[in-house]
Amino acid sequence: MTAKTNRTGKASKAPASALVDPVREANEPTSLLARFGPERPLAMDCGVTLDRWQIAYQTYGTLNADRSNAVLVCHALTGDQHVANTNPVTGKSGWWEVLIGPGCPIDTDRYFVICSNVIGGCLGSTGPASLDQATGRAYGLNFPLVTIRDMVRAQAVLVEHLGIASLFAVIGGSMGGMQVLQWASSYPDRVFAAVPLATAARHSAQNIAFHEVGRQAVMADPDWQGGRYLDGAKRPSKGLSVARMGAHITYLSEAALHRKFGRNLQDREARTFTFDADFQVESYLRYQGISFVERFDANSYLYLTRAMDYFDLAADHGGVLAKAFAGSKTRFCVASFTSDWLFPTSDSRAIVHALNASGASVSFVELESDKGHDAFLLDEPELFATLRGFIGAAARARGLA
Amino acid sequence: MTAKTNRTGKASKAPASALVDPVREANEPTSLLARFGPERPLAMDCGVTLDRWQIAYQTYGTLNADRSNAVLVCHALTGDQHVANTNPVTGKSGWWEVLIGPGCPIDTDRYFVICSNVIGGCLGSTGPASLDQATGRAYGLNFPLVTIRDMVRAQAVLVEHLGIASLFAVIGGSMGGMQVLQWASSYPDRVFAAVPLATAARHSAQNIAFHEVGRQAVMADPDWQGGRYLDGAKRPSKGLSVARMGAHITYLSEAALHRKFGRNLQDREARTFTFDADFQVESYLRYQGISFVERFDANSYLYLTRAMDYFDLAADHGGVLAKAFAGSKTRFCVASFTSDWLFPTSDSRAIVHALNASGASVSFVELESDKGHDAFLLDEPELFATLRGFIGAAARARGLA
Repeated sequence: MTAKTNRTGKASKAPASALVDPVREANEPTSLLARFGPERPLAMDCGVTLDRWQIAYQTYGTLNADRSNAVLVCHALTGDQHVANTNPVTGKSGWWEVLIGPGCPIDTDRYFVICSNVIGGCLGSTGPASLDQATGRAYGLNFPLVTIRDMVRAQAVLVEHLGIASLFAVIGGSMGGMQVLQWASSYPDRVFAAVPLATAARHSAQNIAFHEVGRQAVMADPDWQGGRYLDGAKRPSKGLSVARMGAHITYLSEAALHRKFGRNLQDREARTFTFDADFQVESYLRYQGISFVERFDANSYLYLTRAMDYFDLAADHGGVLAKAFAGSKTRFCVASFTSDWLFPTSDSRAIVHALNASGASVSFVELESDKGHDAFLLDEPELFATLRGFIGAAARARGLA
Repeated sequence: MTAKTNRTGKASKAPASALVDPVREANEPTSLLARFGPERPLAMDCGVTLDRWQIAYQTYGTLNADRSNAVLVCHALTGDQHVANTNPVTGKSGWWEVLIGPGCPIDTDRYFVICSNVIGGCLGSTGPASLDQATGRAYGLNFPLVTIRDMVRAQAVLVEHLGIASLFAVIGGSMGGMQVLQWASSYPDRVFAAVPLATAARHSAQNIAFHEVGRQAVMADPDWQGGRYLDGAKRPSKGLSVARMGAHITYLSEAALHRKFGRNLQDREARTFTFDADFQVESYLRYQGISFVERFDANSYLYLTRAMDYFDLAADHGGVLAKAFAGSKTRFCVASFTSDWLFPTSDSRAIVHALNASGASVSFVELESDKGHDAFLLDEPELFATLRGFIGAAARARGLA
């Protein structure tokens, strides 16, 4: 393979001083890049076919001779392909370095790990921030609406392009978990093991509602300019920041917010009787908003939230989720977190019930954590123990031991 | 009393066709009005003293000869004094007509009910939308920051002004419940019975966080103009609408949203693959946002959310909530709802524990409901039965039977 990996199994890291421009990154990513033309068009659910598209990805570890040890990692809403290397835009560690690396639960000394930016994203895969060849300008809202199935279709092309007929495992949390479920449903013969974490087979009314507020916040910003902001210098930073602040609350639990911040004041002895960020939790949220807009494209945020809203795997199977997995030989490991109120355990149970009904092999664990939805991204020993056990057993079954 | 009540015990109703301008209403309300001058200044927690201020209120029923049957109703964040009469701004029913009226749990044939607009509000009591006599313009952000205690101080002046030495009961939910707790703490001898519903003695980190997002949404709107929008014609409608949409999600439960909307599409057969309000829940939220901005002042929203954030009754008593009620002879009825995640039962329990510790008389009930925080405003038979029992017993103890 052509993966730029070093001897620790991690892709080469950019020093923090060499941060790249996110707009450039959307078209000319520092990641590996697979470009496809009219010979490999991407037919999307909305009816549009992309004749020219690209997918940016990172890989870690080495593909074995059998090409049987590939693990595809699917990222969440605001994630990207930089799962286990320093992010070139932010200069920060990869978003799942606790899980993926040499000796980690997903051991890059044993597995060949692939993570690609989703279609509709903004870190190098084709999306609304990409240049539309027809106009020479960024697509903006001219980009066709993306679905979770479209993301997975694109990933399937990439995996084929890499010469991998069957993935050892597909893993992801949240929107990444939706992709895992879609993979297992669309390409059952190409997925040996599937790990959907903190996710759902359909987005709930409350979650659609939160997303809609975020989108309205972006669109309310006059600098959004009907989505045409990339033609000029202004960005809908205030609107996107508000959207991120609101979303961020939903990623944490009340208990976590209470533990981390409570009603503590930020660098002051007393309330100021102003609208300043008196409370630590306000200051924290404002920082989350500001740092997000520096790395993420506002239109991409609209598209990806919409993709999640549209996701309803049962709807593609006459309303019966079990039919999405009929005859599946994939082995599943489903996990949820007790304090996750965005994708509560009941969502995971619905997946497990459907898998049971379809006769699939499934392990399910509800993990005790007060960290909310974000727990799947954090150092959660119980999750890691579960994954080590599941992946180890699957590897033995696959003959990878 | 001078209350404009008709023979049904309800204040006269304005026909829907005669809706009034909310900006006019902020200064010249159609409600009863008590104006105070330098002889009765309002000293506020922030250190500012208002030399000229006013409080707009509605009354229902008749004050008895002993002046012992007065019930003060405290409204929530976006409520107002029109608790049991048609709202002159919206043309809609009073917000608590299910609870307050002839024969209702709070029976206007027996009790004299008062409800005033809070200081900092925008329906006739002095607030940021009021005219600043010093400048001839609306206060905007020049208005001093308001606390829950300031609201209660102002209400205490009004109650005195009405010649009532002691209230039979003070009742309210959410921000109204905070006022109830403050009344019982600040003026224990003037409150015979107190009914704090779906509330807390201090605002949680998560709730502060949600409020901060709402405020940032308002302030991000360029039409907010640093709070000076009332000098011109434009209003920060988009920002305020986003704030309201986000807040509205927190007033409902996931179960209620699922039951009401689920993933139903709005007047269409299939997804449009656009950012239109495909889902009913999106359409509903957008309507909530739009209708809110027609009746509520954006700055007032900033001020009142801030007042809730600042509320921490224990903090005024060395961090010990029980001390806020030391020696209290008031009888309390505390109620929460199972699906209220904004003010969960644990918040009510903390109040009950403090009241128990202080030796106060307290009834507590957690009511089964899937309607979320808004349950306290709805037709909840169990709540009404509880209140009839509590208020009836209190009335007998007060000699009002």
